[in-house]
Amino acid sequence: MIVGNDPILLTPGPLTTSLATKQAMLRDWGSWDAAFNAVTASLRRDLVAVVGGGEDYTCVPLQGSGTFSVEAAIGTVVPRDGKVLVPNNGAYCARIVRICGYLNRAVVDLPVPEDQPATAAIVDAALAADPTITHVAQVHCETGAGVLNDLAGIAQVCAKRGKGLIVDAMSSFAALPIDVASAPFDALIAASGKCLEGVPGMGFVIVRRKVLESRAGNAHSLAMDLHDQYVYMEKTTQWRYTPPTHVVAALRAAVDQYLAEGGQPARLARYRANCETLISGMAALGFRPFLKAEVQAPIIVTFHAPADPAYDFKTFYAKTRERGYILYPGKLTQVETFRVGCIGAIDANEMRNVVSAVAQTLKELGIKQVSPPERRAA
Amino acid sequence: MIVGNDPILLTPGPLTTSLATKQAMLRDWGSWDAAFNAVTASLRRDLVAVVGGGEDYTCVPLQGSGTFSVEAAIGTVVPRDGKVLVPNNGAYCARIVRICGYLNRAVVDLPVPEDQPATAAIVDAALAADPTITHVAQVHCETGAGVLNDLAGIAQVCAKRGKGLIVDAMSSFAALPIDVASAPFDALIAASGKCLEGVPGMGFVIVRRKVLESRAGNAHSLAMDLHDQYVYMEKTTQWRYTPPTHVVAALRAAVDQYLAEGGQPARLARYRANCETLISGMAALGFRPFLKAEVQAPIIVTFHAPADPAYDFKTFYAKTRERGYILYPGKLTQVETFRVGCIGAIDANEMRNVVSAVAQTLKELGIKQVSPPERRAA
Repeated sequence: MIVGNDPILLTPGPLTTSLATKQAMLRDWGSWDAAFNAVTASLRRDLVAVVGGGEDYTCVPLQGSGTFSVEAAIGTVVPRDGKVLVPNNGAYCARIVRICGYLNRAVVDLPVPEDQPATAAIVDAALAADPTITHVAQVHCETGAGVLNDLAGIAQVCAKRGKGLIVDAMSSFAALPIDVASAPFDALIAASGKCLEGVPGMGFVIVRRKVLESRAGNAHSLAMDLHDQYVYMEKTTQWRYTPPTHVVAALRAAVDQYLAEGGQPARLARYRANCETLISGMAALGFRPFLKAEVQAPIIVTFHAPADPAYDFKTFYAKTRERGYILYPGKLTQVETFRVGCIGAIDANEMRNVVSAVAQTLKELGIKQVSPPERRAA
Repeated sequence: MIVGNDPILLTPGPLTTSLATKQAMLRDWGSWDAAFNAVTASLRRDLVAVVGGGEDYTCVPLQGSGTFSVEAAIGTVVPRDGKVLVPNNGAYCARIVRICGYLNRAVVDLPVPEDQPATAAIVDAALAADPTITHVAQVHCETGAGVLNDLAGIAQVCAKRGKGLIVDAMSSFAALPIDVASAPFDALIAASGKCLEGVPGMGFVIVRRKVLESRAGNAHSLAMDLHDQYVYMEKTTQWRYTPPTHVVAALRAAVDQYLAEGGQPARLARYRANCETLISGMAALGFRPFLKAEVQAPIIVTFHAPADPAYDFKTFYAKTRERGYILYPGKLTQVETFRVGCIGAIDANEMRNVVSAVAQTLKELGIKQVSPPERRAA
């Protein structure tokens, strides 16, 4: 039996979504039916417009999680004899390196410290050092630690050097500003269940039409062949294979709310307020963020774990969950951390409340030294 | 503005689902949270039990449509130097042939007339003729026309000859009887949005554990690597990448209803009654099924289109939709047909009502010759 409200998800997705978004799933849709295909078409248009894509770009939705779309974008867009540079400052960059391995695409894994952003300068130097690189695959906001990478600067370097750019904008799309005019790309990937505040179950790739149209037969997989999905969708208005109809309907409702809220600037303002409220509240309890403020994206915040021997993440998680908030584990290898998301259908009130829940948890568990151990300090 | 009820989906999926199933999507779940992972674990157990799989089998769920899981099963289970026999009597068989092409798996495309089932005898002969074949990929119910293929007989032939068997049970799982004791297989694929009456957005593969465990590094794709998904899920209880949490929750609710209804025998009885009510009602209007009764699965029925020049599918579809029922186009290349599904959270009442809606549509459109043209008769 469920008593009380569901806990609030302070994670990088799935997120807490609005009731209106969830209620959009109370209808069944025929995947062949014109009414459903009109929903798909309107989403494709609206998602291209989020980044100012215009007629040169199209949006190809794909079933599955965001990672499926990342793999589909690489497999479709990078030629089989291409070579991909991956500036690597976290888990999602490492995943792209792994995908390239599966897909037999040559890859240059460029290490960047996980508390620092990838910059135009380091990408430029790497491209200068290896002219055989054909593409750069750049994670915009690396949620492993929460770092914001310099997308616009890196896009300019790629444009200058004539390299293709593939952007994993999974956790930034619709919240952080992205504009094809200042940051041109070949493909950009995001998903339904992140800052658009839909439910998880589909990704999408915003892709330069002329690049996509030249990639017939390039993909390694039928299901992930974005060219084939695109050609079929343009011809029939339908998805090639059964779409996640309820997820699509929820995304339509979520995008309607996004536009009504004021689009990207309004969403960024809300998330930024969430992030500032969280960091200042946690700081008052003694918690220190892993990242410096200037590289911290307002998406997810990594905090150092308390030094107190009474702390362990599992218990801390369980006790904070009992108080209504679901935190997220850290994903760093060298430093013990945990993460708190700032995104979803939540506002600064929830951030004040989670700080209060954490304070009560610290007290219950007898955790006194909240700041990290000295030797671990950044 | 939406007035009135949503139309009933008489399609091979997405289906009309129950309100209880849709209402299960009114909650958000954390993908890292133990409560959600318990749902995943219970589904994996229950789905293996549907086919009597026991400890030798495991269920690996996968994000995406059912086709994603079919590709994942072939890519993971068939060794790179394997050779796949596909008895081909329809569109879903042809899709497996296409997948093998993308994945560079050698394939033998064995044509079977689309109004006849694949049998043990023809598979046995094909295996005898080419001993280098390692696997048979068999569609159980080919919804292109609606034919039920002889799964048990073909499974026995594969067992006798030591060939791996991969079963696409997309549209039969949970409705038609499948038992690993009488029809042993290496892998069997189905999805959330078919006869389990969940919503679309995930597939799953029931796979022989010792086969799966020997396939590390075999898959062509990270996202579709069932071995990697399995190893991670066994270790952590979590999905590797963001699961479609609401779809999973809806499937849990749908499986609960399936078990409460009486499981596979009860579901088959309901679908069989739906199918018989539909065929007899349509026959009274003059419609003739494409298939002979003995090969007709009670899943979806293909009818010959009326010979009357006043008939065209698009108008017929639109007018029947106005009356509350969504039909499905035919998928045969030589004969003009349309299809009506018998599956979903519907009973014989809906079948009587769709026959009535079709009767009114015929009248409105002035279609008098309902039977097919003589030259096209089967």
